[in-house]
Amino acid sequence: MSDPLRLGIAGLGTVGAGVVKIVRQKAALLEARTGREIAVSAVSARNRDKDRGVPLTSYAWEDDPVTLATRDDVDVFVELVGGSDGPAKAAVEAALKAGKDVVTANKALLAHHGQALAELAEANGCVLRFEAAVAGGIPVIKALTEGLAANEITRVMGVMNGTCNYILTRMENGGLSYDEAFAEADGLGYLEADPELDVGGIDAGHKLSLLSAIAYGTQVAFDAVELEGIGRVSIEDIRQASDMGYKIKLLGVCRMTGRGLEQSMSPCLVPATSPLGQLEGGTNMVVIEGDQVGQIVLRGAGAGEGPTASAVMGDVMDVARGTRVTTFGAPASRLVASTPAKAATPAPYYLRLALADKPGALAKVASALGEAGVSINRMRQYDHAADAAPVLIVTHKTTRAALDAALAAMPATGVVNDAPVVLRIEQV
Amino acid sequence: MSDPLRLGIAGLGTVGAGVVKIVRQKAALLEARTGREIAVSAVSARNRDKDRGVPLTSYAWEDDPVTLATRDDVDVFVELVGGSDGPAKAAVEAALKAGKDVVTANKALLAHHGQALAELAEANGCVLRFEAAVAGGIPVIKALTEGLAANEITRVMGVMNGTCNYILTRMENGGLSYDEAFAEADGLGYLEADPELDVGGIDAGHKLSLLSAIAYGTQVAFDAVELEGIGRVSIEDIRQASDMGYKIKLLGVCRMTGRGLEQSMSPCLVPATSPLGQLEGGTNMVVIEGDQVGQIVLRGAGAGEGPTASAVMGDVMDVARGTRVTTFGAPASRLVASTPAKAATPAPYYLRLALADKPGALAKVASALGEAGVSINRMRQYDHAADAAPVLIVTHKTTRAALDAALAAMPATGVVNDAPVVLRIEQV
Repeated sequence: MSDPLRLGIAGLGTVGAGVVKIVRQKAALLEARTGREIAVSAVSARNRDKDRGVPLTSYAWEDDPVTLATRDDVDVFVELVGGSDGPAKAAVEAALKAGKDVVTANKALLAHHGQALAELAEANGCVLRFEAAVAGGIPVIKALTEGLAANEITRVMGVMNGTCNYILTRMENGGLSYDEAFAEADGLGYLEADPELDVGGIDAGHKLSLLSAIAYGTQVAFDAVELEGIGRVSIEDIRQASDMGYKIKLLGVCRMTGRGLEQSMSPCLVPATSPLGQLEGGTNMVVIEGDQVGQIVLRGAGAGEGPTASAVMGDVMDVARGTRVTTFGAPASRLVASTPAKAATPAPYYLRLALADKPGALAKVASALGEAGVSINRMRQYDHAADAAPVLIVTHKTTRAALDAALAAMPATGVVNDAPVVLRIEQV
Repeated sequence: MSDPLRLGIAGLGTVGAGVVKIVRQKAALLEARTGREIAVSAVSARNRDKDRGVPLTSYAWEDDPVTLATRDDVDVFVELVGGSDGPAKAAVEAALKAGKDVVTANKALLAHHGQALAELAEANGCVLRFEAAVAGGIPVIKALTEGLAANEITRVMGVMNGTCNYILTRMENGGLSYDEAFAEADGLGYLEADPELDVGGIDAGHKLSLLSAIAYGTQVAFDAVELEGIGRVSIEDIRQASDMGYKIKLLGVCRMTGRGLEQSMSPCLVPATSPLGQLEGGTNMVVIEGDQVGQIVLRGAGAGEGPTASAVMGDVMDVARGTRVTTFGAPASRLVASTPAKAATPAPYYLRLALADKPGALAKVASALGEAGVSINRMRQYDHAADAAPVLIVTHKTTRAALDAALAAMPATGVVNDAPVVLRIEQV
């Protein structure tokens, strides 16, 4: 019988408490499946006195996660503190330098420091696992790193922020405005302290950058993710999209092209009948496309105590079984710096413009598009009461560069009020 | 740099040729991701002279897969011969006894001999992996064995025979009869040489029995799977189900209950709006439900050269990385014999009966149900020309035992022609 695998857990919020509960309540199951006892040696959090619904007195307490991470009786440091820098980063670095394996749910930390931490882990013979950082309970990191490793990945797509999907679903099904749906999500406690992390696409962008690194053997490049939040999506856009057989999702897409690595996290139109289009509420979905396997769709809860703790413990159990996989699925020294390619793959686009109510306005817009080489698939002008006429345009496939050239020419026409809403139609 | 990992591949059909192609064409990718060169040493198949679209002359040839399996220059024996006994079994046993790791796509072999082979593997310090045996390219064995290992699994469901799903989809969307859809699938080469393996649910039942063993830590018990094929599903059933918001799928379900392990592979009604209900054509889907993670849905191609070879190579790459996981996710000695429980979890059922055109016929059927404690949720009798009146009944939740008692009483009523069609409505 092997020695127990001893955990040091920093961060005792919902997920940390959930991890402790699993270790306590499922000891026999964990041991049967891994052949090894899994135990908690020590824990750390900001407030020692808070009741977390699980007994903690049998574990050593450390006020400082760095001290916790380097204790002699800790084999695996479980980092659930959060934040891209500060104590989380210091403690993970300390753990790796001390030769401890690390399991974390911290997407921000890895999005900003993934390459350095992967190098540090490998230099110290440690593993650094992060299943819980992406899409909650869905074992997508494992699928991409291990199960689908024989594939050249052609595209990864994901709806990975449940709060945004909740807001968009409520706008669609409940007829709420963006502000109303946002307020409702806020009232339910779905939003991060800084809501921009959710609705600005930052949190989901962090996750996408980790998937990209694994998929393409590249160094994590969060700064190269084209981020666009859902704040400009109106109920009118959702209705128009629906009329044409589409849903609007905050969709992450990464793909390697001849020009470089495209990574975008932005509201997109997807076919309503596709798995992505059918996804409602807070559920997450990741679609992985490989040259051998075709399309694999993974769906499940993207957040919450149970799902996230399930992912953390899956990583811990891998360590208990002796599984040693490189952080991003290839040795850190072989991960290459990628060239960012701004969404260059031609796609159809959805545009909504407010035109001044002047004769010839529509013709001027159509000309601006035509002169940039953007051809129009559908155009529709609405009945309107005020002096700005809403016009909806769906283009044929075009590059974003051509579209941007057309959009840059719009102000000079003198007939376009406000910046147009521009949404890519992702073919899935 | 480690030594190369050397494969011996037995069986050079579509999948075997696909595996050789991946090893040849993606050598750099495989080596970058695993840190180890992966090479083929020797191959074996029935016909040496057949052109398989990939060069084989640089590999040693063995006529006998047993000889191949035990060659000194083979580290991993890749078994793609198929069949539950005969050369596949002999070669896998020989490989394990010789201390070789084994990767196989053979569901029948493991469904019938999984426990003995798992014991043999562990006695010899070998791993026996079979991702490709279940749901083709979907990394479901890995998800269940590793990623979701911290969960008590509450239910696993799967649509895992693409041919059956194709036939049912064509009946629904194309208005074909079962015989017409079957003939179409046959013409497209979708059916096994013995079609009963597909439409009788045997192939999918094999797969379900493997998932059950992993989910519940039980010895594989294929013989305990309640098998029912799709041959009695009529287009009328599909239309009636559709009217009520359901689709009919050949659905595998396993769950552990207080009475024992339920495993069934049978045509069931599932909500049309659920991921399972939305699945069309040859695609596979597995739904895993765990106490922590909630519901995880995995979807992808269930067969074909690329997807199956992707799964085989995923297993091979795990071996190359040094990952050693027990066959069914726990040591073979700890897998317990399960008590089979015939579908005992209460569920609503769909019944279609042909009643004799006699006064009081419907009342007699309703009485028979009522006396067995089965209560009726909906009942509908159709307009009819001939002397047998089709009647459709949807029950409230009931046990299968109560329903069977009611069905056993039907012949004595003297008003029921033929055996009723009985389909469970699975709540998903």
